[in-house]
Formats: sequence, structure tokens, C-alpha cells
Amino acid sequence: MQLLQTTDKDFSVKFKTLVSDRREVTVDVSGTVREILADVKVRGDAAVKDYTSRFDRNNLQSLHLSETFIAEHATQCPADVLAALEFAAERIVAFHEKQVPQDIGYTDAVGVKLGLNWIALSQVGIYVPGGRASYPSSLLMNALPAKIAGVERIVMTVPMPGGEINPVVLAAAQVAGVTEIYGIGGAQAIAALAYGTESIAPVDKIVGPGNAYVAEAKRQVFGTVGIDSIAGPSEILVVADSQNNPDWIAWDLLSQAEHDPSAQSILITDSEIFAQQVIKAVEKIIANLPTREVASASWQNYAAVILVSDLAESIPLLNQLAPEHVELCVDNPQLLADQIKCAGSVFLGRYTPEAIGDYLGGPNHILPTARSARFASGLSVYDFLKRITFLECNQESLQTIGKAAITLAEAEGLPAHAGSVSVRLQ
Amino acid sequence: MQLLQTTDKDFSVKFKTLVSDRREVTVDVSGTVREILADVKVRGDAAVKDYTSRFDRNNLQSLHLSETFIAEHATQCPADVLAALEFAAERIVAFHEKQVPQDIGYTDAVGVKLGLNWIALSQVGIYVPGGRASYPSSLLMNALPAKIAGVERIVMTVPMPGGEINPVVLAAAQVAGVTEIYGIGGAQAIAALAYGTESIAPVDKIVGPGNAYVAEAKRQVFGTVGIDSIAGPSEILVVADSQNNPDWIAWDLLSQAEHDPSAQSILITDSEIFAQQVIKAVEKIIANLPTREVASASWQNYAAVILVSDLAESIPLLNQLAPEHVELCVDNPQLLADQIKCAGSVFLGRYTPEAIGDYLGGPNHILPTARSARFASGLSVYDFLKRITFLECNQESLQTIGKAAITLAEAEGLPAHAGSVSVRLQ
Repeated sequence: MQLLQTTDKDFSVKFKTLVSDRREVTVDVSGTVREILADVKVRGDAAVKDYTSRFDRNNLQSLHLSETFIAEHATQCPADVLAALEFAAERIVAFHEKQVPQDIGYTDAVGVKLGLNWIALSQVGIYVPGGRASYPSSLLMNALPAKIAGVERIVMTVPMPGGEINPVVLAAAQVAGVTEIYGIGGAQAIAALAYGTESIAPVDKIVGPGNAYVAEAKRQVFGTVGIDSIAGPSEILVVADSQNNPDWIAWDLLSQAEHDPSAQSILITDSEIFAQQVIKAVEKIIANLPTREVASASWQNYAAVILVSDLAESIPLLNQLAPEHVELCVDNPQLLADQIKCAGSVFLGRYTPEAIGDYLGGPNHILPTARSARFASGLSVYDFLKRITFLECNQESLQTIGKAAITLAEAEGLPAHAGSVSVRLQ
Repeated sequence: MQLLQTTDKDFSVKFKTLVSDRREVTVDVSGTVREILADVKVRGDAAVKDYTSRFDRNNLQSLHLSETFIAEHATQCPADVLAALEFAAERIVAFHEKQVPQDIGYTDAVGVKLGLNWIALSQVGIYVPGGRASYPSSLLMNALPAKIAGVERIVMTVPMPGGEINPVVLAAAQVAGVTEIYGIGGAQAIAALAYGTESIAPVDKIVGPGNAYVAEAKRQVFGTVGIDSIAGPSEILVVADSQNNPDWIAWDLLSQAEHDPSAQSILITDSEIFAQQVIKAVEKIIANLPTREVASASWQNYAAVILVSDLAESIPLLNQLAPEHVELCVDNPQLLADQIKCAGSVFLGRYTPEAIGDYLGGPNHILPTARSARFASGLSVYDFLKRITFLECNQESLQTIGKAAITLAEAEGLPAHAGSVSVRLQ
């Protein structure tokens, strides 16, 4: 954890380092991934089964999980967890339904008809990691926007190391309306989704987080299919005045730190006393936290506390950091919120811990990391729609607008472009 | 040019080959590009100047083109071309302004406030190729949506081989509202835009077409900045009945063929006689076309004519091909248009040659190629906006929804997530 103060002489240098700091460890697995993709492309199911046996110690007869298998395992999800999943799904659906955009269609003054239609992708693959990072909440956040967009085929892959599967993930798949599930993971699952195999029809887009192999496989199949962005380690920036309970803020900072040793928690405050209270609270809480190993690594290596003279100073700092999550723990959070230009998702006031957004606030929890909030956005219904534009001239309107097109085509040295218009004007 | 017929026994095999055919020649330039990027990152302007001297035979004193230089050269744009550019810009602006989306904001039944704001990217780089492919129309199509989105800093780079610059491109830059221009190109221009140099402040996103080096450079800087999609060779699919003038359709097919030897023109028709008439017309026109070298290569190697028994058969074929451009040259084009699920842009009726859309129809001409219309869309105002979501609970609403979040956090093994909520419920 480092403590910075905007009044320090070297603040701008230190802050620049904080902004440009790359926390992600990138291992070059591109060669291995290239081989797996090529093999699955050629050998299909046989290759996927070989890798699954090797990497997941799981000898699958069928890649596809049957209705019976899913139903049997999903019922092992505890009743209170299932109820919470359903409650979360309802709130996520309510927010995402408001994103469904309107088509555009009109005839302009010269009689040209113009239009833009939003059309759902036909088929989408959702990658769900196995083991510790197998979060049912992420499955809801990936699948529900696709369902609301109108995607008909929502295919999920989830590795089953040693044949084990998390019943809560299967319950979440049912709640989210996943239409097919395959018990596979890694680069071989991405290859199967992108190229198709005997038993898995290919999809048009693949979303969802995964390890380094999955991320690299998504990069390599991009173009053959669409992909979502590659997620980096989690980030939270909490802007807090001295009127907060230091314990509450400490818990918030730790809720990111416990995700990943490379996660980053930053506090910006205008009170040095409060900053020290929060730091003390973090240390106290962390000592008894079941996730303390991960949380300590993150806190020690990547956390920062920034002391400002006035909380208004936090805005330019925040916009440069472009963090995934922002909490505004102040009395009039809207005043600060209105000035935010770069962030994934913003949590306002003293009673909106970021974790609420992770599960059931309503907005998506799949958000831009590593400063990509400068140009990217959280997952949404828009990511499962595409746009087709339409144009219709008649003889008269072509006459009106055609000549200028001919002029431009000739200026660009494209005579067939010009000819295709002029031949219709005669 | 190949002629297929849906009634042929081997049609499905041949059509599958047509669909999966990759026309793009990919040269591996990743090593060279990696070196250029690394060099510009370290040496800044000096490196950019060295590469510009070497590749463009242009010894720039200043990378930035001055107001005076731009004004002097832009006035050399012929008056009719400038008028056509302004007319085109007006139509493009009118269509794209309709895309500006509404923010979302509401308080739900339990008192939680939710919101989603669309916010313009701060700064965008537009790459404009030099030489033959330096299309002023593409500059309008890239810059105007950015301007409408509200991007404040629109930076353009354009190489000046031998010190030469196309005055029409500079005139288009003025019409489009570009705010800064640099006389550089290649991977070095992409590096300067992504990392910044002494004289060029970095941008948040880079759009615009370029050669293999530019495309690879964009791939490599993706993540540091956003990029648009990597464009492949142009495509047109014309669905036409026998009531069309074969000459008109021939010109339309050639308007794509003349773009690139790897461009693809496909005609689907229900009349063999008409098909033969179009083929004959193409051959006649091509003989006198100034762009015949490129157009012939494309026509010979990649064109296809598909005979169907009924034009309704064209729809499933079309949706599999997912072409960049579609023309529906029939009497009731809307009937077919309503069934299209995968295409970049659709041109309806006998009086809407695709070239109208290239210049001034209104919709964007930067469109998904190589079947990516299955999951991607043409360039739009949305590409220069990002979304930030907002969430605000108060003490009461957190009490209502908090418990389910705790249940899910515990199910996922994330105690600090649970703690950040439960500490506020006490």
C-alpha cells in the first residue's frame, strides 16, 4: 500500500506511475493455444475429448450435458442461493430491458428512405471458468443481456475438473435461460465454439472470462467470431470524506482486493486522520479474512491511498485512472458523478457498496479494466445486437442526389462507382 | 467468375466453399511492426521522423501540418468536389444524428436509483491511407460520427509520400471538423497516436483503414487504445430479378470489383437468361474501364452468379454469406429486406446503386466484411461513445436488497464482498 498526497512535490510523477502501472502478468501461451485451436479445427470432438481428459482429468463420453444431468445437479443448489439468483436475475433483467434500442426509419425531404435496424445475434457462446473463479453471478451477467437482446441459442461451456461441477452454476444457467451446456473448458472449448465440432455447432460471438489460455484463444479466434473484451484484474476507486465509518470503507476496498492478487484498491480522501483509520481497519479485518492470502497480496502490492486538499481534486485523478468501479461515499454524490468521464460503473452514496453491483444492483458487473474505460463500456444488451442500415432511392430522389456521388466517385478515381449511378440517370 | 445453380447436386458443397473462402492475403508483418512500435514508444518524434524519411521519402521538419499549410492546399480542391463533399457531409450528419442515444435514469419500486449515461470519447485518431486508397469519402465517414458523438479532439494522420498530399483529403478534413493533422503514416503513425510523442498527444481510440502494416499495428496497440474492426476486401451481393436492365446490374457488380483484386461481387437471380445478359454486360463494360486491371482480377477470381428457382431462396444464402453490401433489385424489396439478418448495409430497389451509399446516402460506408456481419456492425455514433452505469441505494433500499447479495457472495466464497454489505445492515 502506498500513500500519496497531492501536495507532495513528486506527486505528479508518482501518480503517473500509478496510472501507467501494468498489474497483469502476461505469460506467452500463444504457441500452445495455436496448436490446440488447429487440432480442434481438424479433429473436432476427438481433439476436445483428448484435451479434456488431459487437462481436466475428465473422460467425457459426451461433451453435451444432458437435461437429466443438469436437472439432477442443479437441484443440489441450496434453496436460499437459488432464491437469491432469481432475485438477482429479476433486477438485472429490469435494468437491461431498458437498454433495448429503437430502430430508426424515415423518409427525408428529397424522398430518400433511410433506416437502421437492431438485430439480435443468432448464437452466442458463454465461457464459464471452472474451480474457484466459477462465479454464477458472472453467468447471469453474461447470459441475461444476450437473452434480452433476443439471442436464440445461448451455449455455455464450463470445465468439470475431475468430473466435478458446481451445482450453483447449473442452477444459474437455468435461471439465465442458457440453451445448451458442454462440460469443457480451456482453449479447446473456445475452439469448439468458434469452429464447431461434430457435436457442437459454431457460434457467432464468444463472451466470458477465463485464464490466460482462454484469453489468448479468444484473441486468436477473433475475426472468425466476435469476442467481448479481455478482462484484466479488478479495480475499485473509493472517494470518501471523513464522515464515513472507516470500517465500511475498509470492507469495500477489501472486496476488490480479495478477487485477485493483482486487483487494485484505491482510496481518495481529504482527511489524513480518516485515511489512517481506514488503513488500520483494513489491517484488522484482513487478519481474520478467509481470503486474506489473496487480499493481502493485492493490498500490499497495489493499493494506494491518495490525500487531496479538496474532494473536487479527485475528479481529474479519477478520469485519468479510468477505474472499473468507483464509489462516491459523500453527501452529494451526484455533484461528483456528473463530472465522471472515464469509469466502468459508479456507486453513489454511503449505502451503495460495490458488491451490491456485483450481484443484483441491476447494471452489469462485466466492466472495462486497465484504463480501457477511456474507450470501452460494460457488457450490455448492445453487445448482443448488431445494426443493419437501409437506403432506398426512387428515380426522382436518385436524380436529386446522384450527381454529387458521381463527382466524388470521379475525384476518387472509381469509374464503375460513377457509372453505376450515371447509367440510372439517363 | 463461377456460375452456381441451387438445383445442382453439388450446390451445397460448392456454396459452402464460397462461404468459407478467405480472399484476404495475409502477410506476417508482426515482427517489423513490433519493432517500429517499440522504437516510437522510446524515441518518440525522432523515430517517427526517421521512418517517415525512409518509407515516405519525406523529411518532415514538423509532424504537425500548420493551419496555413492545410488552408493553402485545401483551396486546390476543385469547387464542384468541395460542394459535393459538403452535400455528402450534410446527408451523413442527418442520418448519424438520429443515432444519438438517450441516457437512462430511474428509481425502482424499492427505492434504488439506477442510470446509464452515454459519454463521448475525449480524443480519437483517424488513420487516412496515402496514395490510391486515400479516399476523402472515408474520412467523412470516420470523422463525422465522432464529431456528432461529441469527441472534442479528432486527430488525423495521413502519409505524404514524396511530400505530396491530396488536396481533396485536406478539404474533406475541414468539412468533417478534424482538429489536428499530422503528415505521417504506417505503423509509426499508429504508434504515435497510441503512445503519444513529444509533438502528438495520445488518443483513446484509433479508427480508419490502412495497409497490412497499419492493420497489424492497430491489432498490437489494441488494449492501450480502442480500435475499430480490421477491414477486409469489399463485397457486394446483388439480388435481382429479370426485370432489371442488365447493364445497371453489371455496373453495380463492377463498382465493388474495381476496389480491390480480392473484392467479391455476387449476383443471385432467378433467370438464367438475365444472368447471361449481366455476365455479357460486365465483360463489355470491363473492356473500357480505366480500373479494368483490378476489376478483371476480382471478377475472374472471386465473382459468382447463383441461379435460384425463386428469389425467396436468396435469403438463407444471403444470411450465410453475411455480405458487406446487399442490393435488392426487385419490385417489393422490403419483403426481402425484412428477412435479412446478416449484412452490413442494404440498398433497396432498382434506383439505389450501392455507390450512393459509398458517398452520400447517409448511412456509414465503413462496414463489416468477411462474414463478420454475423456479429459486427458498420461504424456509427455508438463507436465514439461509451456507457457508464450508476447505482444508488439508501439505507432502506439496501436493507431490502442487501441480504440476497450476502447470500450470493457467501456462495461464491467472497467474504469481503459479503462483509461490505452486512456491515451496513447492522
